[in-house]
Amino acid sequence: MKIGLITIGAELLNGARTDTNAAWIGREVIGAGGAIDWHMTVNDEKSAIQSALDVVPNSIDVVLCTGGLGPTHDDITSSVLYDYFGAKAEFDEPYWELLTKKFAARGQIIPDVNRNQAIKPNIGEVIPNPIGSARGLHFSNELYHLFAMPGVPAEMKSMMTNTILPWIESRSTSKMQVAVMRTTGIMESVLYEKIEVILNDYPQISVAFLPRFTGVDIRLTSPDEVTINRLVDQISPVIQKYHFGGDGVELEEVVGRLLIENRKTIATAESCTGGLIGDRLTNVSGSSLYYKGGIVAYSNGVKEKAIGVKRETLDSVGSVSEATALEMAKGIRNKLNADIGLSTTGIAGPKGGTKEKPVGLVYVAISYDRGEKAYRFSFTPYRKTNKLMTSQAALNITRIHILNGL
Amino acid sequence: MKIGLITIGAELLNGARTDTNAAWIGREVIGAGGAIDWHMTVNDEKSAIQSALDVVPNSIDVVLCTGGLGPTHDDITSSVLYDYFGAKAEFDEPYWELLTKKFAARGQIIPDVNRNQAIKPNIGEVIPNPIGSARGLHFSNELYHLFAMPGVPAEMKSMMTNTILPWIESRSTSKMQVAVMRTTGIMESVLYEKIEVILNDYPQISVAFLPRFTGVDIRLTSPDEVTINRLVDQISPVIQKYHFGGDGVELEEVVGRLLIENRKTIATAESCTGGLIGDRLTNVSGSSLYYKGGIVAYSNGVKEKAIGVKRETLDSVGSVSEATALEMAKGIRNKLNADIGLSTTGIAGPKGGTKEKPVGLVYVAISYDRGEKAYRFSFTPYRKTNKLMTSQAALNITRIHILNGL
Repeated sequence: MKIGLITIGAELLNGARTDTNAAWIGREVIGAGGAIDWHMTVNDEKSAIQSALDVVPNSIDVVLCTGGLGPTHDDITSSVLYDYFGAKAEFDEPYWELLTKKFAARGQIIPDVNRNQAIKPNIGEVIPNPIGSARGLHFSNELYHLFAMPGVPAEMKSMMTNTILPWIESRSTSKMQVAVMRTTGIMESVLYEKIEVILNDYPQISVAFLPRFTGVDIRLTSPDEVTINRLVDQISPVIQKYHFGGDGVELEEVVGRLLIENRKTIATAESCTGGLIGDRLTNVSGSSLYYKGGIVAYSNGVKEKAIGVKRETLDSVGSVSEATALEMAKGIRNKLNADIGLSTTGIAGPKGGTKEKPVGLVYVAISYDRGEKAYRFSFTPYRKTNKLMTSQAALNITRIHILNGL
Repeated sequence: MKIGLITIGAELLNGARTDTNAAWIGREVIGAGGAIDWHMTVNDEKSAIQSALDVVPNSIDVVLCTGGLGPTHDDITSSVLYDYFGAKAEFDEPYWELLTKKFAARGQIIPDVNRNQAIKPNIGEVIPNPIGSARGLHFSNELYHLFAMPGVPAEMKSMMTNTILPWIESRSTSKMQVAVMRTTGIMESVLYEKIEVILNDYPQISVAFLPRFTGVDIRLTSPDEVTINRLVDQISPVIQKYHFGGDGVELEEVVGRLLIENRKTIATAESCTGGLIGDRLTNVSGSSLYYKGGIVAYSNGVKEKAIGVKRETLDSVGSVSEATALEMAKGIRNKLNADIGLSTTGIAGPKGGTKEKPVGLVYVAISYDRGEKAYRFSFTPYRKTNKLMTSQAALNITRIHILNGL
């Protein structure tokens, strides 16, 4: 089913907001058997919205629309749609009573401005909003069905999940299957070379490589689930070292799961990443089961006093070195009594480099009962990206060492 | 000048990528006197790109186009544009030699697939790419000028900055001025009430409130710079406690600047934020001047042994409490010998709440030579958002205490 998307709002065109709704909708409709084939972003002005509705291509069966359903003066989507589809506005007394009660339950008196959220059309349907007060709208003409939703991401997602995606799924003839294989630590071109021969055996599966700073996602699409799964099974062993998970999975979740399965705990000693690894580990619910904590050692004094890096190591080879990284990993493991110690030290940039130790140079080390190892990387000199790449490398090193049995 | 935007790529429609280019372009053209008035996202297919070019509204003077200029088979934008504007392809021998030399300088032999990047049109112009090999294109017809750029953000930005924005600016008749006032710690409606009377005196200035989880941005737009500055000067003193900076400024940069100006150092003891405050502080280049480091105390053992929180405090009032937050802030300040100690402890969610201490409950504390203070918050039970809100509150508390003279 071909789907069109109209996102409404001046804030999207003038860049005050990045349109994250569009990407979410683009991904979700695929699972329901749809595909976004056309997307237009327009100002919240009557003529702009009308023009967009006028130029929807003939191939489109369903139009999804976000934004402009709120209670304030610039929320004009409803009135434009009523006009466009020839609907008349009726006041929905029962819904108004419900809203009034909802506000009262929170100890608030409902403002009069909210009255327009209790308007409903005499034709078409309203779409329930489980978490907000602005309801969605469903109209149709001879060309397409239209679903209008609020722009607030949580409200849009809840309407999509509860009402619109099931509607699309029930009317789709063929459902596309998507498999995503997330990798890290390998360049797109090298990854491609490794699996090219396998891919050639599956010309019917469409393959996309999506490089990010933290790795490359392989995205496989086809209506045939069995064949996709067979392809994934063939690729997996070839890229095991780099392949950490499927669609939407973050590396910190994979590491967390492995730590739980292997009953291991971890502690971090972060210099150049400044706390980012701890932040990522604790983004996972339940991480207190395996993450003991860590030390952000941004100065040599902290490396020495709080983690126990030797003064002579710092004096002889410096804080950005293999020896310091190893002492940090071992030190934090002992200090916090964890099974695994993980450390980072480097020059994140953009300043602070020397000829011997250029900006971007990073060491990551891991220490555990039966072993320890340090890794050297030359990452980008852009600070935030360098930190992100370093945290990803450190988590992947942890993943591989746990898989290898520590 | 009214500008249209066409972003090209299946990965944008199927949600494999969020379109961050559009927001960046939307913001940047305003400063050059333009405004994005129409935006379409299409698949990288010949017919889709042609249809988009066909339906550009008459009001549009300039069309910007991103994506599909790379060397691989699905990069078809160039050939579609050559057709559409009636240009013939010529091989640009000098540019090919330049590319060959560039690759050689990196010790690489240029792949034949790159030959199509040395193609140039016999009409129109090529746009230099200072950081990549795919050049941009500039065509025009009786309706509009069109500029095509690669989709890679860094390459697109460099072409915009060096060539296209100056072109737009030189042809714009009126330049819009935008002032952004970033606030945190105050709800949109309360903020509006505080400044409504002032805003009413400036009906000619367009005002937008942009709420985020970390605060509300006030965005003021007008062609008249003097009046905008006067309005900003009038609003500032009324919202000083919440107003931390202007467009694009992050709170961690403001805190960093204040720490340098006041010659103070800071250390962090993070429980529920898990390292996020350290991560944010170290996103700022030069932060080693004032950030000593910190401890991520994710377990009570670490709070007690590494930071020095008293066992009896943990036993009597628990780790999520005002007393623990204060002892963490004071402990880390002493431990790392910093001027300021900043701590967080809370229940980030989605699990772990009790009736007395529900999910979302957070304490932030600050400690310095002449004082200490703890703050209690009830934030959202969504883990990552809770952490983000907590880190923002902690940084703003630091900002205010430094401004008040510690």
